[in-house]
Amino acid sequence: MMKIDVLTIFPDMFSGVFGHSILKKAAEKSAVQYNVVNFRDYADNKHQTVDDYPYGGGAGMVLKPQPLFDAVASLKEQADSDKTRVILLCPQGKQYDQKMAEELASEEHLIFVCGHYEGYDERIREHVVTDEISIGDYVLTGGELGAMVVIDSVVRLLPEVLGNQESHMKDSFSTGLLEHPHYTRPSDFRGMKVPEVLLQGNHKLIEEWRNKEALRRTLVRRPDLLEKIELTKEQEKWLNEIKKEYE
Amino acid sequence: MMKIDVLTIFPDMFSGVFGHSILKKAAEKSAVQYNVVNFRDYADNKHQTVDDYPYGGGAGMVLKPQPLFDAVASLKEQADSDKTRVILLCPQGKQYDQKMAEELASEEHLIFVCGHYEGYDERIREHVVTDEISIGDYVLTGGELGAMVVIDSVVRLLPEVLGNQESHMKDSFSTGLLEHPHYTRPSDFRGMKVPEVLLQGNHKLIEEWRNKEALRRTLVRRPDLLEKIELTKEQEKWLNEIKKEYE
Repeated sequence: MMKIDVLTIFPDMFSGVFGHSILKKAAEKSAVQYNVVNFRDYADNKHQTVDDYPYGGGAGMVLKPQPLFDAVASLKEQADSDKTRVILLCPQGKQYDQKMAEELASEEHLIFVCGHYEGYDERIREHVVTDEISIGDYVLTGGELGAMVVIDSVVRLLPEVLGNQESHMKDSFSTGLLEHPHYTRPSDFRGMKVPEVLLQGNHKLIEEWRNKEALRRTLVRRPDLLEKIELTKEQEKWLNEIKKEYE
Repeated sequence: MMKIDVLTIFPDMFSGVFGHSILKKAAEKSAVQYNVVNFRDYADNKHQTVDDYPYGGGAGMVLKPQPLFDAVASLKEQADSDKTRVILLCPQGKQYDQKMAEELASEEHLIFVCGHYEGYDERIREHVVTDEISIGDYVLTGGELGAMVVIDSVVRLLPEVLGNQESHMKDSFSTGLLEHPHYTRPSDFRGMKVPEVLLQGNHKLIEEWRNKEALRRTLVRRPDLLEKIELTKEQEKWLNEIKKEYE
């Protein structure tokens, strides 16, 4: 079972996300155990202060080293695993992608450190944290949402978490192409119709249509992805046909 | 005031995030109004079904057009604004960045459409949605976390939402460089020391150290960002000095 600890001063932010849908089911199936900890509880000063003014001046507060050093040490001690990844969410981190999700899904113990609009004392980054991760090039009010995003992407990859119903959604990145369009009933919704080929039950033609539309969508929206994969001869032929339509 | 509607079949996932910290304060200051709606309530069939099998076969369910068409139409009618952005979160969307956050922060009415491990009927994408957004190249169990991420990044940019305390965190992307390291007390924490320059109170030297360290961190971690900005002559000189250290 994977153990996930989260260090935050807003522990209640996590209940909605951990308490629903697949993340909840994963815990019920004992694939994962979540433990959200307020690191204010580890502050050794009277007022349980976790931040302080920056050396050298400037706006903004900085998270003090002591509470996070001691919180991480305590969580490591409590865990069965002697191999722990300590993950800090921040805009300066390594850009998160599906490959990192797969790598983290093979770990036994993850600790997420979430600051909230403060900066982190650099000694935390250097001596406590093993991985700094950024979920994208945008600024958030804290690390909590980033931690939820990483946890969601990792937990869904754990064995037995996804049933058949959901597993098809892996397609998006496992083939290297964006997904083809989907349609469901009715075939005519207020005058908007489903492509004929999907209604006729010829599985070979349906497969071909889906492959081509996945290529088309990737070409139009994310041509950078096409450079990262090796296409089959058939895919290359289709891609050339599609490109001609746009000339 | 910005109005934000969220369409989801897991409305309780949002309470923790909307109910704390800066997103909560923003609502209290009337900078934004959140409205989380279960689009199952708009399903016009007896069992309030929102998904159905895909035409053409295959694993996974597909969200039906009717509930989302009618939910979006109803929310548009209720809103004061006649200009609404309808945002779908999905891996096939445009890659989200800080520039898009700034653009969305100038809107009056945003509707977020969150599917949950199902696919979307293509007619929803074509006729209801104005923007498809991806928060990164990884797969999540649903659109809810993506919506929270986008909302968080947008709301913090609304006027009067961030006080002085938090506003410095904009730095990360507004200068085009990653942030310099931060330090707070104590100056010697269990043998780990704060750089001398920050303790000596020479503001010119501190400014120079911070500028150089921001350049260093960007060079080491995200050299791609350096190609996107124009450096001053002084910054170029420093960058060359830093590069020599790594030769």
